[in-house]
Amino acid sequence: MTGRASLSLSPGLPDTIMELVNQALTGNRRALARLISQIENDGALVAQALAEIFARTGRARVIGVTGAPGTGKSTLVSEIAKAYRRTGQTVGIVAVDPTSPFSGGAILGDRIRMRDLAGDPGVFIRSMATRGSLGGLARATADVTKILDAAGYDIILIETVGAGQSEVDIARTADTTIVVEAPGLGDEVQAIKAGILEIADVFVVNKADREGAANTVRALEAMLDLGTAPRATQSAHHGVTINVEPVSRNSESEPAWRPPILQTVALEGKGIDRVIEAITRHQQHLANGEGEVRRRARLAAELEVILRETLLRRLMAGLAPTDVTAMVDRIFKRELDPYTAAQQLLAQQA
Amino acid sequence: MTGRASLSLSPGLPDTIMELVNQALTGNRRALARLISQIENDGALVAQALAEIFARTGRARVIGVTGAPGTGKSTLVSEIAKAYRRTGQTVGIVAVDPTSPFSGGAILGDRIRMRDLAGDPGVFIRSMATRGSLGGLARATADVTKILDAAGYDIILIETVGAGQSEVDIARTADTTIVVEAPGLGDEVQAIKAGILEIADVFVVNKADREGAANTVRALEAMLDLGTAPRATQSAHHGVTINVEPVSRNSESEPAWRPPILQTVALEGKGIDRVIEAITRHQQHLANGEGEVRRRARLAAELEVILRETLLRRLMAGLAPTDVTAMVDRIFKRELDPYTAAQQLLAQQA
Repeated sequence: MTGRASLSLSPGLPDTIMELVNQALTGNRRALARLISQIENDGALVAQALAEIFARTGRARVIGVTGAPGTGKSTLVSEIAKAYRRTGQTVGIVAVDPTSPFSGGAILGDRIRMRDLAGDPGVFIRSMATRGSLGGLARATADVTKILDAAGYDIILIETVGAGQSEVDIARTADTTIVVEAPGLGDEVQAIKAGILEIADVFVVNKADREGAANTVRALEAMLDLGTAPRATQSAHHGVTINVEPVSRNSESEPAWRPPILQTVALEGKGIDRVIEAITRHQQHLANGEGEVRRRARLAAELEVILRETLLRRLMAGLAPTDVTAMVDRIFKRELDPYTAAQQLLAQQA
Repeated sequence: MTGRASLSLSPGLPDTIMELVNQALTGNRRALARLISQIENDGALVAQALAEIFARTGRARVIGVTGAPGTGKSTLVSEIAKAYRRTGQTVGIVAVDPTSPFSGGAILGDRIRMRDLAGDPGVFIRSMATRGSLGGLARATADVTKILDAAGYDIILIETVGAGQSEVDIARTADTTIVVEAPGLGDEVQAIKAGILEIADVFVVNKADREGAANTVRALEAMLDLGTAPRATQSAHHGVTINVEPVSRNSESEPAWRPPILQTVALEGKGIDRVIEAITRHQQHLANGEGEVRRRARLAAELEVILRETLLRRLMAGLAPTDVTAMVDRIFKRELDPYTAAQQLLAQQA
């Protein structure tokens, strides 16, 4: 079980995944970066590396920051990171960026981060891009978070473009999720996604010095007043699920958490202290029991994804590729429907 | 295999899924609506119904329309539908709406649709909402598309909020995908998603009477000039994939398709004719071979999803829920990592 054959490492870095893990965990930033790349590129290494580090995870506070392009969330993430650095805590930033190189937002965000945070040995920044594979990206993000956790970063900030379910899945990796809005994005009321509502622990209306900020705050307040579904506590996005204990926001033992709505002007550093304060309050709230339920739900979801992948991989390994192609061909010709075809392939396996 | 026990149908509608399917296919709109609801709510009915209708599918032209909130895509979809209606073709509209009831965009879009299209017996409109389950939504959308196809609708328009991978998966159900942009959405350059780039067959810059439209067109042109990855022809979003024949956009037998960039003012019906013309040209292009490759890829992806679901369902059925909960508990306590836990659960099954 050596990774030697499949690895092409930089000179000076170890040539097995386990040595790489060990160096990464002892603070070698280059080894850490390389380990993350390996895990991004080769899923087979993940199981080995994760089994190695898993016992050392679970200590970091993980904060998700999600919002539409144009809300200034990259700037906000940088400011939150700086605020934690001022208290001496180390910060890992995972910027999940499904945007193309043409996205001005991403480039601008990176530039700001570079200027303010680069060279600080207490900060580790990692951008993760998708190549048409956001499902895999959610898993890779969870794995990178675990590695940074095991490597000892106190705070891990996960920045995502808030939009589809996949981003919601990524945000679910977090203990506390901040949803960033901004006034005047488009001329219709900015659409607020159902999934995003469910995951928000803290709302931040950034660019609050702009016209329309009060309207955005009011819209969010109205939404909270009407009440939303309780935060999902199971991995319910593919039909079959592993259930965990449901959590009620209104249980007698614990008051419900109402997401605060804060206003910031991140470019000027305004309002950041109140964001940090809200995160702290939320994490104290989680300590009352909901945090454990969330972490269990997250781990159950991870387990489910791994089971799904492993089962399909095993099935495909036991089938001749030509049989599968022939089956697709029969479906294409309408000789067979996909459900019946699936039954037949599964029967071949047995 | 009767659905009688699990169905609660309206009076006057049949009480088995097969009778419902038969009525829906003979033009009973109420039966069609009910069938779709049944399929949305009860995945177990899908296999039965789909097997029944599958041989009658594959005739409709499926057009996906995706874009960020605020681009005016609902209005554009209505205008495209009206244009097809003027030529006598019937139109099914599937509006996949992951936004909350608070989204002004969705409400506005529905209102416009109601006013212009309601009462036309040649149009069937169906909104599909997510309840935190976009993965399932993509499959449900594909299934509803098949039902409308089997029911004889000539054109099926699938409208999605263009954002995450799940929306990309939904758009993949289409033969032709239109990506809608609009000038001035946010003050940074509007982020253009990598996944969206790969799926665009036609770009529409809507609200083209607004300032900045020329800039948006230029940005899209520049992006196309730089060249993007060829349209994905496999279901590559979860690591394990069923491969189909790759298609090259630059094969000698067939000139590459460059997505045209069109400008519209959908609210005034301006530019719609050119959109219809571009769709027609694209579908002629598909007829040269790429269309078949895409349809095969789509069916392979569907088969893969069904296999994945079935395998996990079988595994879970064979395990005691308490064993799974106990395993999650051990992961939570860091006694076991998720990958090792998955191996142990799979070993219990064998």
